Amino acid sequence: MNDYMRDVQYYETDRMGIVHHSNYLRWFEEARTYYMAQMGYNYCDIEASGVMIPVIAVSAQYRSGAKYGDRVRIEVGITRLTPVKLSFCYTVYDSVTGEQRVSGASDHCFVDADFRPCSLKKKMPAFYSELEQRVNKA
Amino acid sequence: MNDYMRDVQYYETDRMGIVHHSNYLRWFEEARTYYMAQMGYNYCDIEASGVMIPVIAVSAQYRSGAKYGDRVRIEVGITRLTPVKLSFCYTVYDSVTGEQRVSGASDHCFVDADFRPCSLKKKMPAFYSELEQRVNKA
Amino acid sequence: MNDYMRDVQYYETDRMGIVHHSNYLRWFEEARTYYMAQMGYNYCDIEASGVMIPVIAVSAQYRSGAKYGDRVRIEVGITRLTPVKLSFCYTVYDSVTGEQRVSGASDHCFVDADFRPCSLKKKMPAFYSELEQRVNKA
Amino acid sequence: MNDYMRDVQYYETDRMGIVHHSNYLRWFEEARTYYMAQMGYNYCDIEASGVMIPVIAVSAQYRSGAKYGDRVRIEVGITRLTPVKLSFCYTVYDSVTGEQRVSGASDHCFVDADFRPCSLKKKMPAFYSELEQRVNKA
Repeated sequence: MNDYMRDVQYYETDRMGIVHHSNYLRWFEEARTYYMAQMGYNYCDIEASGVMIPVIAVSAQYRSGAKYGDRVRIEVGITRLTPVKLSFCYTVYDSVTGEQRVSGASDHCFVDADFRPCSLKKKMPAFYSELEQRVNKA
Repeated sequence: MNDYMRDVQYYETDRMGIVHHSNYLRWFEEARTYYMAQMGYNYCDIEASGVMIPVIAVSAQYRSGAKYGDRVRIEVGITRLTPVKLSFCYTVYDSVTGEQRVSGASDHCFVDADFRPCSLKKKMPAFYSELEQRVNKA
Repeated sequence: MNDYMRDVQYYETDRMGIVHHSNYLRWFEEARTYYMAQMGYNYCDIEASGVMIPVIAVSAQYRSGAKYGDRVRIEVGITRLTPVKLSFCYTVYDSVTGEQRVSGASDHCFVDADFRPCSLKKKMPAFYSELEQRVNKA
Repeated sequence: MNDYMRDVQYYETDRMGIVHHSNYLRWFEEARTYYMAQMGYNYCDIEASGVMIPVIAVSAQYRSGAKYGDRVRIEVGITRLTPVKLSFCYTVYDSVTGEQRVSGASDHCFVDADFRPCSLKKKMPAFYSELEQRVNKA
């Protein structure tokens, strides 16, 4: 699995001169989407098939701020999977120096198109099985 | 009609120390929503009744940048209305000094829930009539 | 202290029809800014006096999604204060039904204009003292 | 010059199921940054050398909405250059079908670190000359 590479955009910085802390949650989303795409599962297709994977909790620790002009590398891992829940972890590094910027985690549940909890294991057994093999192997 | 008042938020500034230019389009949206709400039409209810009013064109001229700590006042006017189209204009002022920050305009069409063009005059005649009375009276 | 009231904006929703989870971190920022402003300390003035209070960690738990047309009420509390660190907690409720939407927390440090850690107790003793009186009284 | 390729992100969509119109201004920014980078000028370095190129006007026409799962291709051109001003035009296409999504334009001026207007021709003659050769050749 390749890490997710991302250039800092001007509109993502704030007047402190660094990326606004809320944007890392958006990068986490980009990074886990890329992760699943590399597994062969586009999140768009997953939703089209009737399963949504909303965020139910998120956390982030900010060590140092990414700046405009920086390129970051984001490592993604799966830390937990049950038929009804899924957790990811993320680490954001400067792509050049390797310095750690931010780490974080997100917890998700599986719901159907009517927002009712559902079992991914039943709904998408092949995808579930693929995820299972990746738990803690980031 | 009251003007729309808005505090600049930290996350809306960029590393230049001023509000990122893209955010004024969001403020225009807030301001026209507030304008319609004062007319007695919540945009949320309008959409619930089956009419959407998407933006089909937008423009903005930036004179001076709003800064964190500023409060802005946004004037809204209706410049044009036909059964199938609607245009707004906006002027953003510093609420204290009155200095002009940004002016802009947005053009909209009316579509139904399936994104097909529709006539607001037929779909919501009372709302249409109310809008008509406000053209060029901002 | 008044809670912070906030209308959901259209641009804050995503295609799931609810507020994108990253935006709650921005609302937390708005709410703590409002909280400090009620104490008589505008964050803009705090930065102007040479102290910045960056976020060093954040977490959020999402119970139910705020929708367009909703108005939310955000309670803020101070959970911890040391001369070099400050923590807030937040609870977002629907302003009409009282239903809980999201809860969260943020940890902050104090730094000077050169991003060097500093003691708020030394730099702004009156503000520090005011904060101290509010710990765990939200 | 290569066009700028961009995947639609989930957080960029709104409850209408399409990319919120304000985000195209951010994509324009990404695209013109990429355009200048291909010329050998990173915008970050330009600012570091004491020249900022703020947006003074912007416009966009929305033909059809990009959706989550789409990849867009953005063509950039330079439409006008004077020692003190610069204008870009943009066209956003679906990368697969070639369908046009949005077109737009942005006008910029050149200012120094103190936000005073300056001549790019004097400040950065080589960059100015490179830009000049690209006017209307997008």
